Amino acid sequence: MIPKVAMIGGGSWATAIIKMLSDNFTAKEIYWWMRNQDSIVHLQKYKHNPNYLSSVEIRIPEDNISDDISDIIEKAEYIILNVPAAFLKATLDGITPEQLKGKKIISAIKGIVPDENLIIGEFLNQKYNVSYEDIVVISGPCHAEEVALEKLSYLTIASTNLDLAATFSRLLSTRYIKTNISDDIFGTEYAAVLKNIYAVASGICHGVGYGDNFQAVLISNAIREIKRFVDAVHPISRDIKESAYLGDLLVTAYSQFSRNRTFGNMIGKGYTVKSAQLEMNMVAEGYYAVNSMHHVNKKYKVDMPICRAVYAILYEKHSPHIEMRLLTEQLN
Amino acid sequence: MIPKVAMIGGGSWATAIIKMLSDNFTAKEIYWWMRNQDSIVHLQKYKHNPNYLSSVEIRIPEDNISDDISDIIEKAEYIILNVPAAFLKATLDGITPEQLKGKKIISAIKGIVPDENLIIGEFLNQKYNVSYEDIVVISGPCHAEEVALEKLSYLTIASTNLDLAATFSRLLSTRYIKTNISDDIFGTEYAAVLKNIYAVASGICHGVGYGDNFQAVLISNAIREIKRFVDAVHPISRDIKESAYLGDLLVTAYSQFSRNRTFGNMIGKGYTVKSAQLEMNMVAEGYYAVNSMHHVNKKYKVDMPICRAVYAILYEKHSPHIEMRLLTEQLN
Repeated sequence: MIPKVAMIGGGSWATAIIKMLSDNFTAKEIYWWMRNQDSIVHLQKYKHNPNYLSSVEIRIPEDNISDDISDIIEKAEYIILNVPAAFLKATLDGITPEQLKGKKIISAIKGIVPDENLIIGEFLNQKYNVSYEDIVVISGPCHAEEVALEKLSYLTIASTNLDLAATFSRLLSTRYIKTNISDDIFGTEYAAVLKNIYAVASGICHGVGYGDNFQAVLISNAIREIKRFVDAVHPISRDIKESAYLGDLLVTAYSQFSRNRTFGNMIGKGYTVKSAQLEMNMVAEGYYAVNSMHHVNKKYKVDMPICRAVYAILYEKHSPHIEMRLLTEQLN
Repeated sequence: MIPKVAMIGGGSWATAIIKMLSDNFTAKEIYWWMRNQDSIVHLQKYKHNPNYLSSVEIRIPEDNISDDISDIIEKAEYIILNVPAAFLKATLDGITPEQLKGKKIISAIKGIVPDENLIIGEFLNQKYNVSYEDIVVISGPCHAEEVALEKLSYLTIASTNLDLAATFSRLLSTRYIKTNISDDIFGTEYAAVLKNIYAVASGICHGVGYGDNFQAVLISNAIREIKRFVDAVHPISRDIKESAYLGDLLVTAYSQFSRNRTFGNMIGKGYTVKSAQLEMNMVAEGYYAVNSMHHVNKKYKVDMPICRAVYAILYEKHSPHIEMRLLTEQLN
């Protein structure tokens, strides 16, 4: 039996997952919600997403693409959430816990819900009464652009319900997508959030003038920082060197195309946060993530010198030069 | 009291260490052996190494630079070995255990002595009766080129004799060099050897057509492979995420300038080993290292699928495409 899957969100990662699903089983069973009406019309007419991964042919039926989120959610058993974390509350506004009841909710979001300071799994559980047994997290390392090119990529599908993780992972596995399963929804979500902060840190260091030797030290400290944090938040046995943690950090922090790294680089070169955001005309997730982490870590008090330095630079207007020099004393 | 230090070898890493030492204490106490007589004359006349890091000013006295290795060794208490592993035996030919007695021997070599299949520490211990208490290993992550630019870099100085490690680390610490100390001479040496193999593997994958997503998976598997191996060879408590292991792997495998990566890339694109070496006009250390590791691992029988794939491609003439596709089934 082919399950019905709904995608909530119209960005490049959503488009990449739509491609995996429709290369894998019949596209007829896929439903797609996006906010932008022009994009919907373009998709229905030309079978390509006008703004993201435009080379990917979209084969799902016209009627399955809509801006009516209630309708899309109602039709599917699996709901994939894939909007920026900052817009999740607004996107789900008007959706009741009742509407999500009995459905499997998959988070493809990497972020923390602002104000709530909750990762997506926690938010769904606390605000929509979704059982953890019905929650799945999709992790990389995976740039959407490489999915469009059908470059081999590995995803980790996490759920405390390992049967559900295995079932959902089969929906995504294709010739160019291999999947691992994991029971660590907290660790994979937090690692995915934190990596964006370290990508910003990498960019700042580059902007300030540090080289590749220091970058390697920074990242080998960053993965230890991730381990300390996720072990404090959710102490289970995990190998932080697995792809979902270390691999995801590497693909982001070493990417020349990462908007987090680009944003950090501009900060390191002396741009203000506002001018960097204006110049880039987009949002670096790490900018929001480090603020949320700053609040979340008030509870756990984990030693996170890199996150602290990025927070001080972005939110307390500390000098990137001075803050990074102080940071170098704390790394090894 | 300022110790007398001898450098054996004239390459870029040797030049970088000479710079650290002479930025740190008086250059008068440094002695330098190199094979190439023309380079010695150039160095004495122009105070710059003609072939490596030519921008670095060499301030050590003319008379301290020589091609008489016995004389240079006799003058110093600390002997830094810094020739390619493949040339170590020939370089030390004629030197007796007696001449090294009572001296501290520092390996800045990353490699395995061919035929012997020993790392440098083992070779010195077994062939020259040097006590492990007198052996020191210098590890990165550290591209010599960034030392020339005085970019902040971290070195790990390892010795079973931690006092010696601490003393020697003080000789290298400068404004742009921070040092960690470690008691893990086997782990740091093997990690430094293995990283070159994974840099070749990265290059092959790139040449064959894999992207950044796969590269992140490859490297997060590589660090686990390193951990399995060094834990089998020398089972002490160590955190493989430290800079000397993970950092050194990252700086090499993600470097665009690594000759190991470049060599692998050519192999992936279909060059033969011979034509790649001719074209590059230099030797990729990983090419020799994977052969030595293949022999060393016959004893330990550690599961090392990436090393095995690189060996099969380079020494058994297996197709890079097929071998890498088989490898992808073994990674996660």
